[in-house]
Amino acid sequence: MTGLDPPLSAVRDAVARALAEDLEPLGDITSSLLPPDRRATAAFVSRAAGAVAGRACVVETFAQVDPSVTVDWKLADGSVVGPGDELGRVEGPLASLLTAERTALNFLCHLSGIASLTRRFVDVAVGRCAIWDTRKTTPGLRALEKAAVRSGGGRNHRGNLSEWVLLKDNHLTGVTIAEAVERARAAWPGRTVQLEADHIDQLRQAMAAGADIVLLDNMTVDEVVACVELRGASTRPLLEVSGGVTLANVGDYAGTGIDLISTSAITQSAPALDIGLDVT
Amino acid sequence: MTGLDPPLSAVRDAVARALAEDLEPLGDITSSLLPPDRRATAAFVSRAAGAVAGRACVVETFAQVDPSVTVDWKLADGSVVGPGDELGRVEGPLASLLTAERTALNFLCHLSGIASLTRRFVDVAVGRCAIWDTRKTTPGLRALEKAAVRSGGGRNHRGNLSEWVLLKDNHLTGVTIAEAVERARAAWPGRTVQLEADHIDQLRQAMAAGADIVLLDNMTVDEVVACVELRGASTRPLLEVSGGVTLANVGDYAGTGIDLISTSAITQSAPALDIGLDVT
Amino acid sequence: MTGLDPPLSAVRDAVARALAEDLEPLGDITSSLLPPDRRATAAFVSRAAGAVAGRACVVETFAQVDPSVTVDWKLADGSVVGPGDELGRVEGPLASLLTAERTALNFLCHLSGIASLTRRFVDVAVGRCAIWDTRKTTPGLRALEKAAVRSGGGRNHRGNLSEWVLLKDNHLTGVTIAEAVERARAAWPGRTVQLEADHIDQLRQAMAAGADIVLLDNMTVDEVVACVELRGASTRPLLEVSGGVTLANVGDYAGTGIDLISTSAITQSAPALDIGLDVT
Amino acid sequence: MTGLDPPLSAVRDAVARALAEDLEPLGDITSSLLPPDRRATAAFVSRAAGAVAGRACVVETFAQVDPSVTVDWKLADGSVVGPGDELGRVEGPLASLLTAERTALNFLCHLSGIASLTRRFVDVAVGRCAIWDTRKTTPGLRALEKAAVRSGGGRNHRGNLSEWVLLKDNHLTGVTIAEAVERARAAWPGRTVQLEADHIDQLRQAMAAGADIVLLDNMTVDEVVACVELRGASTRPLLEVSGGVTLANVGDYAGTGIDLISTSAITQSAPALDIGLDVT
Amino acid sequence: MTGLDPPLSAVRDAVARALAEDLEPLGDITSSLLPPDRRATAAFVSRAAGAVAGRACVVETFAQVDPSVTVDWKLADGSVVGPGDELGRVEGPLASLLTAERTALNFLCHLSGIASLTRRFVDVAVGRCAIWDTRKTTPGLRALEKAAVRSGGGRNHRGNLSEWVLLKDNHLTGVTIAEAVERARAAWPGRTVQLEADHIDQLRQAMAAGADIVLLDNMTVDEVVACVELRGASTRPLLEVSGGVTLANVGDYAGTGIDLISTSAITQSAPALDIGLDVT
Amino acid sequence: MTGLDPPLSAVRDAVARALAEDLEPLGDITSSLLPPDRRATAAFVSRAAGAVAGRACVVETFAQVDPSVTVDWKLADGSVVGPGDELGRVEGPLASLLTAERTALNFLCHLSGIASLTRRFVDVAVGRCAIWDTRKTTPGLRALEKAAVRSGGGRNHRGNLSEWVLLKDNHLTGVTIAEAVERARAAWPGRTVQLEADHIDQLRQAMAAGADIVLLDNMTVDEVVACVELRGASTRPLLEVSGGVTLANVGDYAGTGIDLISTSAITQSAPALDIGLDVT
Repeated sequence: MTGLDPPLSAVRDAVARALAEDLEPLGDITSSLLPPDRRATAAFVSRAAGAVAGRACVVETFAQVDPSVTVDWKLADGSVVGPGDELGRVEGPLASLLTAERTALNFLCHLSGIASLTRRFVDVAVGRCAIWDTRKTTPGLRALEKAAVRSGGGRNHRGNLSEWVLLKDNHLTGVTIAEAVERARAAWPGRTVQLEADHIDQLRQAMAAGADIVLLDNMTVDEVVACVELRGASTRPLLEVSGGVTLANVGDYAGTGIDLISTSAITQSAPALDIGLDVT
Repeated sequence: MTGLDPPLSAVRDAVARALAEDLEPLGDITSSLLPPDRRATAAFVSRAAGAVAGRACVVETFAQVDPSVTVDWKLADGSVVGPGDELGRVEGPLASLLTAERTALNFLCHLSGIASLTRRFVDVAVGRCAIWDTRKTTPGLRALEKAAVRSGGGRNHRGNLSEWVLLKDNHLTGVTIAEAVERARAAWPGRTVQLEADHIDQLRQAMAAGADIVLLDNMTVDEVVACVELRGASTRPLLEVSGGVTLANVGDYAGTGIDLISTSAITQSAPALDIGLDVT
Repeated sequence: MTGLDPPLSAVRDAVARALAEDLEPLGDITSSLLPPDRRATAAFVSRAAGAVAGRACVVETFAQVDPSVTVDWKLADGSVVGPGDELGRVEGPLASLLTAERTALNFLCHLSGIASLTRRFVDVAVGRCAIWDTRKTTPGLRALEKAAVRSGGGRNHRGNLSEWVLLKDNHLTGVTIAEAVERARAAWPGRTVQLEADHIDQLRQAMAAGADIVLLDNMTVDEVVACVELRGASTRPLLEVSGGVTLANVGDYAGTGIDLISTSAITQSAPALDIGLDVT
Repeated sequence: MTGLDPPLSAVRDAVARALAEDLEPLGDITSSLLPPDRRATAAFVSRAAGAVAGRACVVETFAQVDPSVTVDWKLADGSVVGPGDELGRVEGPLASLLTAERTALNFLCHLSGIASLTRRFVDVAVGRCAIWDTRKTTPGLRALEKAAVRSGGGRNHRGNLSEWVLLKDNHLTGVTIAEAVERARAAWPGRTVQLEADHIDQLRQAMAAGADIVLLDNMTVDEVVACVELRGASTRPLLEVSGGVTLANVGDYAGTGIDLISTSAITQSAPALDIGLDVT
Repeated sequence: MTGLDPPLSAVRDAVARALAEDLEPLGDITSSLLPPDRRATAAFVSRAAGAVAGRACVVETFAQVDPSVTVDWKLADGSVVGPGDELGRVEGPLASLLTAERTALNFLCHLSGIASLTRRFVDVAVGRCAIWDTRKTTPGLRALEKAAVRSGGGRNHRGNLSEWVLLKDNHLTGVTIAEAVERARAAWPGRTVQLEADHIDQLRQAMAAGADIVLLDNMTVDEVVACVELRGASTRPLLEVSGGVTLANVGDYAGTGIDLISTSAITQSAPALDIGLDVT
Repeated sequence: MTGLDPPLSAVRDAVARALAEDLEPLGDITSSLLPPDRRATAAFVSRAAGAVAGRACVVETFAQVDPSVTVDWKLADGSVVGPGDELGRVEGPLASLLTAERTALNFLCHLSGIASLTRRFVDVAVGRCAIWDTRKTTPGLRALEKAAVRSGGGRNHRGNLSEWVLLKDNHLTGVTIAEAVERARAAWPGRTVQLEADHIDQLRQAMAAGADIVLLDNMTVDEVVACVELRGASTRPLLEVSGGVTLANVGDYAGTGIDLISTSAITQSAPALDIGLDVT
């Protein structure tokens, strides 16, 4: 168990659901035609460049299909791979390997896809600022996807609505920013209080109100530079750039001196990493 | 309930899981600061071009958060939208709308993303062949994603390993194609029996063995043309092209006379469709 | 809610599971071909003689498939029906009716089958002794099946291993019957303590030990008569006949003066009652 | 894992539910009176003739009650047994064996009952046609019961409504059979399309429309013979006899040349096979 | 497994829920900062006097967090401990121990708190009458809390509403006590039938009606004495004192000759027993 | 929905579990004896002084038992009540009211007990500092109990291990406080980082390291005063007193100038508030 792993409870539940949806009611009717005593070894091999995430789900998938299957890893979550690289091997009854194959790969390719795209953003920003994810995750898989972001070198924004206060426009009708922050501090002491700012003027108010983080929403690089200058030498509030960040412009934002760049693309629009399971 | 809807049981479970992961243990601590009697209306507005899917999940999300919220749709699943198009509206307590917003959008944007990419493939192939999905879906969301494919005009390949027999290389060690098909017919009478073919020669054997569908795996357009010619005037077996199909080449394959083109991209790598919820 | 109903929590869970197994992942692909606006009425009609049970499951099935479907009953659980008798009607979209039909009937026919066979035993024994069920129920459906027994006029033995103490041979190694009963009273005061007796001599010991119920296991009618005489005028212990009871001999046992006859046949081997859903 | 096994996910869930319903809230209060260090061996012994199914459920039941219990089988699922035959043994703490006994037997006897009745139909039909089950299964246990049918030598019809298209009268209002089949092929390419026929004339239309299977509903043996003759030398469509089939007449139907005989009796009305657990 | 253990099914489910609520979505973000290869041993040490309960939950918690953690007990459930007493030890990766610590302790302290308060009541009453719990338990934890009562030397009243009949005022409108008991016996033969009595006169009627247990509700010690005298030498009905019993007066009631004293305090208001996990 | 409510998802699940454990398998066998058409009204009446919490659970309990029961509240969560005060009323079939009564009260009394004890701490501290809960909650009920704390005027500490970083002794082996905070900031930017301090010297280091909150563990009032003085005029870090706080000394601590006092007593050892349901 490391900081890259999701909670095992989330892994177990997600795998159980995935196997049920792929196997019930009749099971793998094709593999049922195989001789039950035929054994095989198979290797997870990447067909493309990227970063690995989701090993815990793979292990759990084979364990739930057939506890007699063994899994040996060569590479850990977070490893960077290229085409042809072997991640690890499974050994056991051929029918069990084939029955579990697609579910295991669906986890591995999806989560490694997230790690891989995160890694590309991180590689541009590294040494300058951190890459943050968002709550724009696939429903039901947040724990796994947020762990995949960490495997790609990214950092986790709020895990959910329960973790900290993030005041956006719609929360600010009829109250000033100062009043809203004061109420948040009173109701939820000790928690991060974050504000969304569309203009540098809102950043000024947020700083006056003592916000912990300010999200600079959909600002140009120049606007972000101005915001960073306004904050000056202080380390607070943390400044987050959000909205419209792409691989093409993330470097420009990363150079502004902000602390965090968040992007929904890494969880919401990352293509799967192409990994296969080659029976040897 | 139409053919575009997923089973309600799958919708209810997926929404319950998604809300639990976004709200527990403390709930939406930001919206808790709002006056409980403030009401609002908000509109789902597309920011990009695409096709809509996932309405049932949106309805269920608001119902589970607050049964007093009402949802009115202007557009049905399957509708094609452009930037600025309104899909529908919700009305109710502002706090409830904001609490449900992200979960509802995560479903809507993810599933509409799948429908939208499917629609692009379908629009190229239309009138010539059907676009099929695969089992390469996000774990735990297969029922919803397969419905989204239908909303995009695509068709559903096997729902899972239980539905039909698909014999690949690894299932064919030590038996001829004819023997394998015969065994499949004996063990699972009445079901579709599909074979994977890497070469036209395997198609020839599959036809002799009476396969219902043959998957032409990673073949060039020319190879596919040859396979179609081999089949000749018969309507059987159905021929499926799979492997390496992209928006750039799908038209070429669609023109070969094959019946089905399957692609994992539409479920595994579709970017989310950007849809927002604008409070008015 | 009456004494014939199972707990609603058990009904909801059982129906949700049953619909998921019949519909996921793709839904009712045949009904998806119907015009979504076609409505229909359908009647539950018995094709055979029996007793009705399982209405709550039918109502819940249609509610979970489509809340717009309405259900109107003519007959209550426990009603005796003959061929051609109408139990009630459903009205709603035709596609919804057909999608829910089999699941609703699977509950209704299975549970009415239990009620019907129970009713046949009860009709023989009525006025002389009660018919008891056992714990030999279909795994996962005990609450529903025990309610069906009540609908057939039967009574419920132990609901499960938690409800009362039943000491059989294997529980009595190394202790006397008197010691065993004393320990049971000390550990679980207030609860029914029952003993299994293979011979009248064990009944004598059980009576001396103060058992609440004695199960006369696999005894002949004559042996049972002797046991009843041994108990004499007292109302305690209750005497239960169990083992080898059939419709052919239940009358003989019922005439012996015992209190209860238990049979696993009514839950474990009752044929389904043939009920159809006729679209009108 | 063989083709006779149900998916393990279904086994785990069914056993967990069954144990919860038999043990909660207080546990097995009778076995709690036993000395915790007393160990025992017990044998599963058949009291009647039949076929075995459900071993995976037995193993899972003991594992969930007490992982220290060991199970050793002498006979596999599908084995034919007679009175007195030993299926296998369990060894472990006596209290654990007694606590798990009824749940394990409820699975084993119910599923072996299904396998046994299936076997009787199969033995009549063998070499002439296959015996098919239906969707008339016990709610929540379909995966287990369909596996039991396979253990009895039967074959599985549709697993659920998602697997293939089966057009009955109610699906055919306002469309011709040809139109309905065409729509089904267009909406669900590659899947089996089956039609129900009450008269030979409908078979004729179904053949013209290219149906994969035709269900001959409630036809006499003579009518079935005529249908088989109509099909002639072709192997398509598959012909299924359904409705009113019993052990008494299955041989007559099997002699007609049809491919499949389906019966709901084997899942819906099979008496439990009497198997006991004898502590030695 | 002994009579002090709750059903394992209840333990597994409760632990899974508790871990999910403490760890999802991101896991233990503090322990994620530890070196993954650092191992440790930790001891469960009581900080106060009391009785132990909940070991099965502790074992299950560590097993679900990290199967490589080992747990060794020095003391069994039911043991009486004082400040400084060590209950047992866990060994494994430090991060795993710290991640599981609070959940394990929440079970152990809560359940030992119940056992401890039960033990105090039992120690006063011992040799004179038994201490009974009630259905006033923490929702969702009844199986665990009733087992904790047993670990404290107490006995379990009804496990739930399904186990026996308890007729209170509201059940007796419009019927006499005799009629109500007769109906209960007819509907639910073999089960305990208990009556609530506010006055000695109701006890008299209950005795005449043949009740198995009579609950003497909120009576003074003198009233209870009179009730015991009314019953005289008979062992039936069992007499239960309930309402207003405290540690201060339980001795007075225990001396009256009644059989059972029930108190909701032991499950509903027992302070947690202070037990810590000391890393060594 | 207000800030006092727990997430509805948590309420639904907790109520479903509680009803299942109180009713399955046979249901409320006592209420089954009542005439099904008898209706009643009943009032929730407090028997003691305290604060109300748990209304959402009560509503959900009656809804799940019988949707025809109506609930009308006079008082909201958070209301302060005295003996005899009516909280609200339910109306419906008498059998349904009695079946749901104990489950509804178990929630209401347990959660109001937490709110009531919280309120007593808050009333002492009010205007000087906030009362914080801990993670020492009843397993499986954290969302409900944390909401009850809010209803009592308290505030919520970390919801779970996922929400913020809290570095205790065991997390600090081999690293300085400054290093540990730096690592936490790097791994989990934007999140609250809290440190536990046993001595004022550790507070000094924590302040130097820039901690957001410092937990002053088991310090005397004088030590706390010194810590507050050390912090001086700054508002950061927040200072939390924890360990050994009771109603007797909370006022002393509250007067020191610290920000937060946390106590496990309010969730772990709060006696239930005595509330009854009086049928009228």
